[in-house]
Amino acid sequence: MRDFGDIICGRNSVLEAIRSGNTVDKVLIVKGNNSGPINTIIRECKKNKIIIEFSEKQILDGICDESKHQGVVAYVSPYQYVEVEDILDNAKKKGEDAFIILLDEIEDPHNLGAIIRTANMCGAHGVIIPKRRAARLTSVVAKTSAGAINYTPVAKVTNISKTIEELKEQGLWFVCGDMSGDLMYSHNLTGPIGLVIGNEGSGVSPNIVKKCDFVAAIPTFGDIDSLNASVSCGVLSYEIVRQRMNAT
Amino acid sequence: MRDFGDIICGRNSVLEAIRSGNTVDKVLIVKGNNSGPINTIIRECKKNKIIIEFSEKQILDGICDESKHQGVVAYVSPYQYVEVEDILDNAKKKGEDAFIILLDEIEDPHNLGAIIRTANMCGAHGVIIPKRRAARLTSVVAKTSAGAINYTPVAKVTNISKTIEELKEQGLWFVCGDMSGDLMYSHNLTGPIGLVIGNEGSGVSPNIVKKCDFVAAIPTFGDIDSLNASVSCGVLSYEIVRQRMNAT
Repeated sequence: MRDFGDIICGRNSVLEAIRSGNTVDKVLIVKGNNSGPINTIIRECKKNKIIIEFSEKQILDGICDESKHQGVVAYVSPYQYVEVEDILDNAKKKGEDAFIILLDEIEDPHNLGAIIRTANMCGAHGVIIPKRRAARLTSVVAKTSAGAINYTPVAKVTNISKTIEELKEQGLWFVCGDMSGDLMYSHNLTGPIGLVIGNEGSGVSPNIVKKCDFVAAIPTFGDIDSLNASVSCGVLSYEIVRQRMNAT
Repeated sequence: MRDFGDIICGRNSVLEAIRSGNTVDKVLIVKGNNSGPINTIIRECKKNKIIIEFSEKQILDGICDESKHQGVVAYVSPYQYVEVEDILDNAKKKGEDAFIILLDEIEDPHNLGAIIRTANMCGAHGVIIPKRRAARLTSVVAKTSAGAINYTPVAKVTNISKTIEELKEQGLWFVCGDMSGDLMYSHNLTGPIGLVIGNEGSGVSPNIVKKCDFVAAIPTFGDIDSLNASVSCGVLSYEIVRQRMNAT
């Protein structure tokens, strides 16, 4: 269980952190700001008995960029990782087929944040990331996730490939996004599923492609090589959603 | 339409470049100069969200003669904007129904870059952005677009709403992404189409929602408010692709 991500900057992210019941220790608010969003944060802090400190703008600027803090910064206890079992339990509790997003070495924290945000919105039960060579849960990820980090559990595993094998034993099927595969529409992606998204530069590792039941290609008509990793994840996740909703 | 190289020197030239809406990435200003013209440039930079860097005089001298820079140097991108007609021609040349992505005040250059990348990959014929209150083509956008900026034309217009009206006369239908609408699957998105993506914080402006023929909602099952803007754009663009490919 971990460890870091101790500062959250920006109004929406701070508000989400407070409302999600996360362990916000203290909120710093720039002096003299009486705007509506700031007053909402003050009210939520009082309701949740969170310490408020009114500070000079320079102090907040020293913590993160002005464009990022928007007059408010929160100190939170570190984000906790969950176990893979917790994600499966999350699906069970909701009475839904498991839907897990596995990231094969996503390096950019903005992508990790956007993917956790997508996971939350598309109804995935959790995200699994590798312990090494990958972005971890930091304040940048928290901000980019727009608060989703407080709702969608993230597990960190030593070996994605081994985790796939273990989850297969639990009844999950695996699909990865890779141009070498058949079009995503041609696969049956209903039922308990793990979606594997590859590294920004090199895509899904060949040994992990081999482990997947389906290799799904997003149709492309362009001049460049690939979509942004978080966009790919969004497109593939929503193909799973579409099939689950049986929408045509 | 463009005209110059990578560096512009001198107060008037820099000011002109900023005000013309050209692609100024960064402005270098000599430290300690508080003259009126320099302050005007600083104000214009802030208004246009252009990065300002205060540097030693020697650094500016190394870029161009002191007599030329007058305390200020601007770095500009060599990216050219096209006209809306060029985008329509692009579709005609390919013998395809026009597919244009319109951005209603996307502010984050990373989002703009990822969207141009998506536009290229999903076969859109171009991207239209507003002249004001929006990210423009800078080197950050170019980098995030993974090269797509060199293939997918981008037009800059004064008024997105007016452009929609003009394009309707050319036979395009308009769809915007907004939670208030019916599920995206329920709309017929084949044929010549413009997809409108809203601002990161506030979504599509109400007056533009009104102008759209279809308001399409991405199905959501989450705890937070919305997807990342470039992910939304990817999901909606690929729903258009799916319908065009007639995939079920």
